[in-house]
Amino acid sequence: MALNVAQKLIQSHLVSGDMVPGSEIGLKIDQTLTQDATGTMVMLELEAMKLDRAKTEASAQYVDHNIIQEDNKNPDDHLFLQSATRRFGMYFSRPGGGVSHPVHMQRLAKPGKTLLGSDSHTCANGCMGMLAIGAGGIDVAMAIAGEPFYVKMPKIWGVKLTGALPDWVSAKDVILELLRRYDVKGGIGKVIEYYGPGLKQLSAMDRHVIANMGAELGATGSVFPSDEEIRHFLKSQGREEDWIELLADEGAQYDLHEVIHLSELEPLIAKPSSPGNVVPVKEVSGEPIYQAYIGSSANPGFRDFAVAAEIVKGKKVAPGVSLDINPTSRQMLTDLVNEGHISNLLSAGARLHQAGCNGCIGMGQAPATGRNSLRTTPRNFPGRSGTKEDSVFLCSPETAAASALTGKITDPRTLDMDDPKVKDLDHPTVDDDMLEAPLPFEEARKVELVKGPNIKSIPKMDALPDELEVPILLKMGNNISTDEILAGGARVLPYRSNIEKISEFAFEIIDDTYYESAMRIRESGGHAIVAGFNYGQGSSREHAALAPRYLGLRVAMAKNFARIHWQNLVNFGILPLTFSMESDYDTLEKGDVVRFSNLRDQLSQGNHVKITIVGKNKALTLTHVLSKRQIDMMLKGGLINWVRDRRAGEV
Amino acid sequence: MALNVAQKLIQSHLVSGDMVPGSEIGLKIDQTLTQDATGTMVMLELEAMKLDRAKTEASAQYVDHNIIQEDNKNPDDHLFLQSATRRFGMYFSRPGGGVSHPVHMQRLAKPGKTLLGSDSHTCANGCMGMLAIGAGGIDVAMAIAGEPFYVKMPKIWGVKLTGALPDWVSAKDVILELLRRYDVKGGIGKVIEYYGPGLKQLSAMDRHVIANMGAELGATGSVFPSDEEIRHFLKSQGREEDWIELLADEGAQYDLHEVIHLSELEPLIAKPSSPGNVVPVKEVSGEPIYQAYIGSSANPGFRDFAVAAEIVKGKKVAPGVSLDINPTSRQMLTDLVNEGHISNLLSAGARLHQAGCNGCIGMGQAPATGRNSLRTTPRNFPGRSGTKEDSVFLCSPETAAASALTGKITDPRTLDMDDPKVKDLDHPTVDDDMLEAPLPFEEARKVELVKGPNIKSIPKMDALPDELEVPILLKMGNNISTDEILAGGARVLPYRSNIEKISEFAFEIIDDTYYESAMRIRESGGHAIVAGFNYGQGSSREHAALAPRYLGLRVAMAKNFARIHWQNLVNFGILPLTFSMESDYDTLEKGDVVRFSNLRDQLSQGNHVKITIVGKNKALTLTHVLSKRQIDMMLKGGLINWVRDRRAGEV
Repeated sequence: MALNVAQKLIQSHLVSGDMVPGSEIGLKIDQTLTQDATGTMVMLELEAMKLDRAKTEASAQYVDHNIIQEDNKNPDDHLFLQSATRRFGMYFSRPGGGVSHPVHMQRLAKPGKTLLGSDSHTCANGCMGMLAIGAGGIDVAMAIAGEPFYVKMPKIWGVKLTGALPDWVSAKDVILELLRRYDVKGGIGKVIEYYGPGLKQLSAMDRHVIANMGAELGATGSVFPSDEEIRHFLKSQGREEDWIELLADEGAQYDLHEVIHLSELEPLIAKPSSPGNVVPVKEVSGEPIYQAYIGSSANPGFRDFAVAAEIVKGKKVAPGVSLDINPTSRQMLTDLVNEGHISNLLSAGARLHQAGCNGCIGMGQAPATGRNSLRTTPRNFPGRSGTKEDSVFLCSPETAAASALTGKITDPRTLDMDDPKVKDLDHPTVDDDMLEAPLPFEEARKVELVKGPNIKSIPKMDALPDELEVPILLKMGNNISTDEILAGGARVLPYRSNIEKISEFAFEIIDDTYYESAMRIRESGGHAIVAGFNYGQGSSREHAALAPRYLGLRVAMAKNFARIHWQNLVNFGILPLTFSMESDYDTLEKGDVVRFSNLRDQLSQGNHVKITIVGKNKALTLTHVLSKRQIDMMLKGGLINWVRDRRAGEV
Repeated sequence: MALNVAQKLIQSHLVSGDMVPGSEIGLKIDQTLTQDATGTMVMLELEAMKLDRAKTEASAQYVDHNIIQEDNKNPDDHLFLQSATRRFGMYFSRPGGGVSHPVHMQRLAKPGKTLLGSDSHTCANGCMGMLAIGAGGIDVAMAIAGEPFYVKMPKIWGVKLTGALPDWVSAKDVILELLRRYDVKGGIGKVIEYYGPGLKQLSAMDRHVIANMGAELGATGSVFPSDEEIRHFLKSQGREEDWIELLADEGAQYDLHEVIHLSELEPLIAKPSSPGNVVPVKEVSGEPIYQAYIGSSANPGFRDFAVAAEIVKGKKVAPGVSLDINPTSRQMLTDLVNEGHISNLLSAGARLHQAGCNGCIGMGQAPATGRNSLRTTPRNFPGRSGTKEDSVFLCSPETAAASALTGKITDPRTLDMDDPKVKDLDHPTVDDDMLEAPLPFEEARKVELVKGPNIKSIPKMDALPDELEVPILLKMGNNISTDEILAGGARVLPYRSNIEKISEFAFEIIDDTYYESAMRIRESGGHAIVAGFNYGQGSSREHAALAPRYLGLRVAMAKNFARIHWQNLVNFGILPLTFSMESDYDTLEKGDVVRFSNLRDQLSQGNHVKITIVGKNKALTLTHVLSKRQIDMMLKGGLINWVRDRRAGEV
């Protein structure tokens, strides 16, 4: 049968299940990627599992998120991560080395392989003919430990690219066009596979730009073929031997179809505050701006910075505009310096920042209250910039640079100059000295983990009791996000390696008495919560399950759950149940005490769980959709216990 | 009479008092400098005074401290400062433009002039043949409004430099030598004037390095002559017309004398946690380091970065060492880029940060817990780095770069290479486009102040009561710095424009119950504190007086006070008293309630203030050194009340 690229990647890594869209499949994972905001927890999980050495072909830990060091916590984490990667036989990209996705692409990505990363933009490496998927930290920890990754088989969405991009239109506008057409839920349950004659014109880094923002469409992954351009790219990185050709078979089919005529595109921009809120730049041109921001994994290429430099060369940033340059990596910054682009940017008035994620993840470069910020980053959710009342637009480097000069949103086609048409370098700097390679096994085994005072082991979690009687501490409405369950940002995230401490922030946005109430009854059996539809939407952070679990949350009852958070609940031994009838949601009140009896039997014998409301003479039946594997995990108190017991030969 | 340079500068600006060491003199101020951490308060004070336009020859506002933007507060402040400088007819150096002291030196400093700055390192510009003094924000606000600056006539301390610096020894080692000999109190009440044949070898920027850390000696100012080297420097900045010769007269005398034979110096280092804790580098060599840090106003020259670049060129930073480069200014960074030095630093593994103060003031680059950090910055007070348990050493760029390569403290003379002997550029980049010039008067008058939601007016302060009975909330030891009174750093400084909020952090490093205790008794009369020698050393930030004042601090009793903080206490209506006998310090305990009677009469009638300790049947006599003007101010509750009343014709 003729296969497309995504099907080839899945088929060659399938270890369980059938390739039927919607059914669970298990995939062998060849490579993993972790960043520092999620990586410390992954390392602590590996420690809890007593892993001796990573079982993957390559696992890399990047330090790119938390590189502002305002106190000991971030640098302590960096040293911990360095020691942990040495201990477990992984790559370590030192602080300042750059953003995980492009650096991984340059130095480690291989066509034909699978990559699992604890970062939602992991899909960016799909540009290399890989199946690259973002997941929660513990899923990545499992992959590092050699376990398969389980996911519902996606539909494959073929997006055919034809024609060639006009002047002043670049890769960012291609993915913005897809977001314009399908909005932020358009890719859910799908892998987007790009093909067609339009690919010829798109460099590997252009494809990275497009693949990256598959995350904003909600896609499971973005896939490009591995063609001559990828060979060329790997050659420029001194890794031509890592190239294999990986193309769709003649006559391959897709589950869904789309066509983008590149030649018909124009500069696009996502207005505040959703990546799906896309319009032509010309529709909003003239609005005054405070900031123009170049960088992030959504525009990481040499050409993305160089084109901005060529646009502002010999000119000056408008008064009141902050032109922020966030280089991709130390090596790319070196190239931009050596080619004269940094000098041009600085002379125009740019602020040059350390290589890393920076403002893209709210780590610095927040805009002033209510002022417009134009960014080449992938996301503009409200407040993500760090400023509560922000107004962030997403666009290409061309649009951002043009607007920096005029001080207002500007369609680059209206500039009085020709499109500079910069290309990536054929011979970029390649230097792996700051990307530490795995230590040899015997040397690695001797490494001690370096734990600063803020780094605490993961608290032990007990098995799910057979009989449970717990009060409902919270009753919430619909669409509760993980940001509301456990906030991100610079106030909370520094405690990412300290579950005990970070738990103090759990649910505080919803009910600031929750922490105290939960702590009070934590030792005497814990508690339950109730929520409406789409519980746990948003960021994948597993702390949103871990922190409530630490505080004694045993059961979450909701109308339904967002996919990744549901998985995180299961992984950390919190029983997710859905109401069989929506009206049952109304029956339960905050303060009600609910009793679960014979839980082990109930879970194993079917999809229903009966509960009674103590003292009210009421009973309800709820539903679970746990697989056999997940029920085992749940009964043991979560995935960590399950793996540890299995490694000890008890399963 | 033959005058030295300092005397010439004072005499030519004297508007009141006599040049008798210890007596108060009033000085005409020609130029002012404010940075963003202190500048917002200055601008609010100017607004409160209803100033129409700056009365100085040049007043410049720099944005260099708070350039990490984690939320709206810093960028809102930047826009506020930009609007205020436009309104009041001042220069505005845009965010990313660089560190105030070297940028001011390059673009605005003029030999023969006075400069008052709301930053303790303002003395750095003494390198230009100026009298440059650091002061509290409100003193600078007064100077901008055309008022004289009042200070006790300093003793002039002549430091004769002879000989020439050996290889691998640079300007930083000169000032470290003075700190080694005299410690952090050695300059109190003095202006240090450098002279002698050794000057010939020291460039203007070398002199800046030496003048800068006059602040660490507690000096009122550091003064260099304006000689041919300064002419050369101004020429390189395209400002030769601003040069005048300003030399000591033949036969000029000094109140105190010192000689440093440059040729006898060796690489020096200040150990944790005081700039006065100086030893030869060789005494501590071999200790492992976590960080090497190049930059700050204490080593701002092109050559300071270039020499580090030449040392690491073609080599690699040791594993586990963070080599942090904090460029001085956008223009100097451009030069370092164009001359190839940045490329060399990056290739060696350096982390390149935005031009500004950064880690020097605890804004990022904090070291890991307990790990050694080698910095070219001026200060290593405990916790100033941002990390509570820090271990910061101060040294030259040569020592820092050498240590980065080896991973341990290294005397640069032990490197297997020759001293690169880099010089500053004869033709540096000069471009004032990002240093906005004052608007014309009519245009300026129309400018509206732009106030973000975190920018609050200064709280009202009541007059000093005639009878006062207050408990002692804190009893502290010697050398308490303003960093301990009110921390800098990214957690605290963003609230600099919001006194009510920033007060929550007052004294928390010393006693984290202080805030609550003070708030409890704030309305019922306030409190007092007791301290040892050199109380309030370090940074000039007036929040260290304003915040405790807001919390009810009325009287500070100490063995003695650091100059700027003493002035800030007076300005904000906190009565500073010194013990007549050192042993009286031992008499007072935390918790004691002290009573002051007939304060108005006591202050006016002499230099003694009697107090009784309630319930202990003890009495003490303390001393004040307030001038008549300051007593008036004190009785009214501080300078703002005094000025306001005077402007209303009540004085």
